[in-house]
Amino acid sequence: MLKNYRITISYDGTRYDGWQKQKNTENTIQGKLEVLLSRMAGIEISVHGSGRTDAGVHALGQTANFRMDTELSEEELFRAMNEYLPDDIAVLDLRIASERFHSRLSAAGKVYRYRLYVGKGKPVFERKYVWQLSEIPDIDRIREAAGYFIGQHDFKAFCKNHRMKKSTVRCIRRIDVEQSPDGKEIDLTFEGNGFLQNMVRILTGTLVECGLGFREPEQMEEILESGERNRAGRMAPAKGLILIEVKY
Amino acid sequence: MLKNYRITISYDGTRYDGWQKQKNTENTIQGKLEVLLSRMAGIEISVHGSGRTDAGVHALGQTANFRMDTELSEEELFRAMNEYLPDDIAVLDLRIASERFHSRLSAAGKVYRYRLYVGKGKPVFERKYVWQLSEIPDIDRIREAAGYFIGQHDFKAFCKNHRMKKSTVRCIRRIDVEQSPDGKEIDLTFEGNGFLQNMVRILTGTLVECGLGFREPEQMEEILESGERNRAGRMAPAKGLILIEVKY
Repeated sequence: MLKNYRITISYDGTRYDGWQKQKNTENTIQGKLEVLLSRMAGIEISVHGSGRTDAGVHALGQTANFRMDTELSEEELFRAMNEYLPDDIAVLDLRIASERFHSRLSAAGKVYRYRLYVGKGKPVFERKYVWQLSEIPDIDRIREAAGYFIGQHDFKAFCKNHRMKKSTVRCIRRIDVEQSPDGKEIDLTFEGNGFLQNMVRILTGTLVECGLGFREPEQMEEILESGERNRAGRMAPAKGLILIEVKY
Repeated sequence: MLKNYRITISYDGTRYDGWQKQKNTENTIQGKLEVLLSRMAGIEISVHGSGRTDAGVHALGQTANFRMDTELSEEELFRAMNEYLPDDIAVLDLRIASERFHSRLSAAGKVYRYRLYVGKGKPVFERKYVWQLSEIPDIDRIREAAGYFIGQHDFKAFCKNHRMKKSTVRCIRRIDVEQSPDGKEIDLTFEGNGFLQNMVRILTGTLVECGLGFREPEQMEEILESGERNRAGRMAPAKGLILIEVKY
């Protein structure tokens, strides 16, 4: 009997071409999962993620679901997946979900974290997971600018330019800006009902420009209103971003 | 004028053949430093480390010194080294030391940490820096066994077998065995006046065998007395080991 499995996955995105399966590469997280499960099941299995992550972006708690008919128990399937997946992709949790559960459509919100490294010297052990800034941004200016993004807004100016008619309105519930106890890192934590393509990275890039004094926090309002991508800041590198949690 | 520079270095040892320069490979930490400094100085520069680290072993605070005649200030030399070194080798500190300072001969002690991962699932982001155990060792048994190593002993049984006449007596000041707050990691921190080749890894392997019940803590005494490498346990993998600090 087909069961609907829900999995929570962690991955180091460094060497992958993002979450989503693509025609020209097998090197995606979704691709790795589908190849493994299809081989185990003997028929093609589709894995549905809560959303895409860009090439090089990491996940601590991505959620996905797939339908499969297997005699393995949940514990056995969990172990088998972890054993055969590469060591930079881990299944943290696996359980049978209700028939209606869909990782994308059922999602109520997401939490992303962007890690900025501002210490002296090079972050040898964190180098693949942070964006190193050569100057230290003003944390109060970042917080002030971030305030303009809280609530429901049209984030068209902060997403990859697509000529499509889908809504670009999203609600951001919080953006926490916190410096680590040793002062070497500034972490931006975004929680919202959903995020557009590249949105967290463009928001981060723009906030960093505010923090470094290249922009004024008040400008955020007019950028939002303009809906023009070229009014917003540069996109922050993929490697500093991590999908922390998908909420249901 | 030749000055004696003292540097503190951090490196991710994953892709290197250890600290020490070798004839058949340029891919060592010492090699990378010497090639860079020699190019900057226009003559050959020798870099002296506090000691070797094995291939795959990491460092948070390795210490080295070298003599060089340069017009660069310490700050400029520090920046140049960090700019031209690969992103998995960082200079954390650079200063002019007294003429007599020698990173190996002046060293008074060293601190190493060995990280054991005992969580469920795979440590995706820490996979290159921990040794994952499939069973959870008994931390009290590890502590009890570690107690036998404290103080001055002949550690001949716990080092790579060399037919040499150098002393294998060392003094271990402490071995702290601590579980991380989330319970996923057990860290062994060794401090001593010096460590023989592979010694921390063989001690760790033997302690883990005690923790898993394959050996009794009391056996440590007779292994020490025997001086026979084959009486001690298996050597733990290089990747879980990190040189934390060299004391002067």
